[in-house]
Amino acid sequence: MKKILFTASALFGGFFLSAQTLDTDSIATVRIFNEVLAKGEGYENLRVLCKSVGHRLSGSPQAAAAVEWGKQAMVKAGYDSVILQPVKVPKWVRGNVEKATLHQTNGENLSLTVKALGMSVGTPALGITAEVVEVYNLDTLKTFKKDALKGKIVFFNRPMNPHHFSTFMAYGGCVDQRGSGAATAAPFGAAAVLVRSMTLMHDDHAHTGSMRYDPKGVNIPAAALSLNDADALSAALKGFPNSKVTLQLSCHHEDSVWSNNVIGVIRGREKPEEIVTVGGHLDSWDVGEGAHDDGAGCAQSIEAGRLLIQLGLRPKRTVHVVLFMNEENGACGGVEYARAAKRNGEKHFFAIESDAGGFSPRYWGVSAEDQTWYALMNRWKKYFAWYGIDQVLGSGGGVDIGPLRDAYKIPTAGYLPDSQRYFDVHHADSDVFESIHPRELHLGAGHLALMVYLVGNNQK
Amino acid sequence: MKKILFTASALFGGFFLSAQTLDTDSIATVRIFNEVLAKGEGYENLRVLCKSVGHRLSGSPQAAAAVEWGKQAMVKAGYDSVILQPVKVPKWVRGNVEKATLHQTNGENLSLTVKALGMSVGTPALGITAEVVEVYNLDTLKTFKKDALKGKIVFFNRPMNPHHFSTFMAYGGCVDQRGSGAATAAPFGAAAVLVRSMTLMHDDHAHTGSMRYDPKGVNIPAAALSLNDADALSAALKGFPNSKVTLQLSCHHEDSVWSNNVIGVIRGREKPEEIVTVGGHLDSWDVGEGAHDDGAGCAQSIEAGRLLIQLGLRPKRTVHVVLFMNEENGACGGVEYARAAKRNGEKHFFAIESDAGGFSPRYWGVSAEDQTWYALMNRWKKYFAWYGIDQVLGSGGGVDIGPLRDAYKIPTAGYLPDSQRYFDVHHADSDVFESIHPRELHLGAGHLALMVYLVGNNQK
Repeated sequence: MKKILFTASALFGGFFLSAQTLDTDSIATVRIFNEVLAKGEGYENLRVLCKSVGHRLSGSPQAAAAVEWGKQAMVKAGYDSVILQPVKVPKWVRGNVEKATLHQTNGENLSLTVKALGMSVGTPALGITAEVVEVYNLDTLKTFKKDALKGKIVFFNRPMNPHHFSTFMAYGGCVDQRGSGAATAAPFGAAAVLVRSMTLMHDDHAHTGSMRYDPKGVNIPAAALSLNDADALSAALKGFPNSKVTLQLSCHHEDSVWSNNVIGVIRGREKPEEIVTVGGHLDSWDVGEGAHDDGAGCAQSIEAGRLLIQLGLRPKRTVHVVLFMNEENGACGGVEYARAAKRNGEKHFFAIESDAGGFSPRYWGVSAEDQTWYALMNRWKKYFAWYGIDQVLGSGGGVDIGPLRDAYKIPTAGYLPDSQRYFDVHHADSDVFESIHPRELHLGAGHLALMVYLVGNNQK
Repeated sequence: MKKILFTASALFGGFFLSAQTLDTDSIATVRIFNEVLAKGEGYENLRVLCKSVGHRLSGSPQAAAAVEWGKQAMVKAGYDSVILQPVKVPKWVRGNVEKATLHQTNGENLSLTVKALGMSVGTPALGITAEVVEVYNLDTLKTFKKDALKGKIVFFNRPMNPHHFSTFMAYGGCVDQRGSGAATAAPFGAAAVLVRSMTLMHDDHAHTGSMRYDPKGVNIPAAALSLNDADALSAALKGFPNSKVTLQLSCHHEDSVWSNNVIGVIRGREKPEEIVTVGGHLDSWDVGEGAHDDGAGCAQSIEAGRLLIQLGLRPKRTVHVVLFMNEENGACGGVEYARAAKRNGEKHFFAIESDAGGFSPRYWGVSAEDQTWYALMNRWKKYFAWYGIDQVLGSGGGVDIGPLRDAYKIPTAGYLPDSQRYFDVHHADSDVFESIHPRELHLGAGHLALMVYLVGNNQK
């Protein structure tokens, strides 16, 4: 493309600041995005988190370093105060051994790329060696005869459905095999579980993620396979059905430890007792650098607060920028934030979360019992649309702000960027800073700042 | 993010195929996108173009190879016929020498990353060595006294404005320094021109692109600087104002040569005499692999035709899938396609172009004199929105289909994906296949197919 093919109005989505649109909120919107697009600091902040701290599973030394990073970034941004809120979190450790080998009945061996699922128990030191039974999904297990799975490794190989535009829909359609595969296979006597990674990207990355055992059941080890190796294993089992896999995992649980939510406070001008919360989660899985999940949401939230301070746009209500600990394997940070709020008699008004990646803006999702919020969102839609959000969906929030919503019955909003690339990197070694685009990240920070500004000043 | 945070309706933008929406066009829409998202062939086709052919400036051997690539891909996709339409194109050759060195008055030398602008004349073999005068834009030149720029290298350093959400707006705001910088500086006696690259990405890539001389003026050499080196040069000139730069370019013009547009024909079921054109341009600049500009548009267009054939969705009207030659430095392919149409007495109905990159879908831009087209687009908006296009902008088209629009007064549509990353790679060595995402590319192919289907069957 070499020329300017379209008129300005076409390219800018019809946005012109004509005289009649120059209301206060229009001006604030443009000021927020001018600042973040030209002088945003979120990208460089995120670089520090990714490169100097790296991945940061709850309870790890890096998680403690991330708390310090968040505190320092908020202090530098000029927040009125920064609170470290104690949270007790589980500590799960991957350990050094994580391997799987396919022994085909024709004598050939194939090394498989695996990652233990988060919270899985490990295997005996010499591993578990067993025949593999491939199944499509949890329901398929019920079709097996008694004892058919006994001592076997059950291999859940249901792919994410590529037909959905939203990759979150595709994820939602089969993530139960990761979350509940082990718990569902254990009563059949299975020895371990392998799960096709939750991604649409055919490569060699295995994607970890949380799983839960039945508290009354047997805990069997579970690991994710990369798509390339899930396909290879599936093909091998077709040719050599009685082939065995040896799975060795050294992961284990240690005692719970104390960690923190990081809460940055920007005191409200007129109603300081009412609180608008915006945040992401500070912990990540122990792979990659947790750049999109959810370093992006943390960096954007800190930046949103900085923008409001820097531009003199402090809202009437108090803003809490919260970096929640332990979203990935327990959600203890979100639970504690809500409990402490009740304990302290805080008044909460609205909560916003960014935990769907740092990509180009697409949608706001808003959940509200009071339907007048949707009329408000409709009125604000023109501001969102200038910077790439053309729809406000009828439901939204986040894992971390869910407990607060439940405790206070307040509306929640989830920031939803473009999802096409998200599960390429989600919970994998590829979730690194290099997959973040500065403008895309900063647009998200701008939208968080704008929503906080609009909600924080609303007459309600 | 670990759980399914949102209801299905929220995540899919409210899309549910309820009974009453199951009209023919709904079904066609879903079939098109199911096919392309699960079994699309555009991505692998584009890989071949990028990796086996590479960049392909008009008149180069690679451009000829690209014509063959396009023809083969269309034959394989089952098109009714493939026509190679002769087009005479300019031949500009970059040559082997392309360097610039800053000689600071303090004795230090700095090598600068440059790329000759397309269609520039070269320098003498030993280069041009001259003092450098930095200016902001074309208008700044008028503020200089007579002879102040004589023999100097004029350095246009106006940056793209990062404030715009649409990076095309930012591009449009300062690309005149690339297109007309040399022509504007030559009458002041300037010896050569250096131009800040048209990008927002601060890195070491210089971005080439077209420029035009005044036919009655003096032709002086012109080259683009990477942003890192534009900033370095600017800083050096502040410290050492009389520093000189030596610019050596071996680029030159050769005799025009014959090349081709590639036209794939899918004959209409009911009105075969009326033609809907969809395409992109096959040529690229002689850098990178022309992946986004515009290998993506070519691969998407070919795939759009394949989808319609494969799914039995051949429209009432005839479809021309056109890979235009020479968009970048002459637009001769687009001109010849329109001329030949008139010469052959063809009836043209609508034309569509994809030449804004292969990223995630955002907008359609539609230009139509007959306003009823906008009512139609409004009716079709729900189909577009299921797969990420939430707005139809009031103007759109493309360089290649412009001559056809002018000749026939037909409506034109331009496919407009997300623009945040486009100018990172535009006309640079970084425009390679690895910057293409398979789902993003295929969503664009789906939208092209859908628009061709809707327009090609419309009652008008």
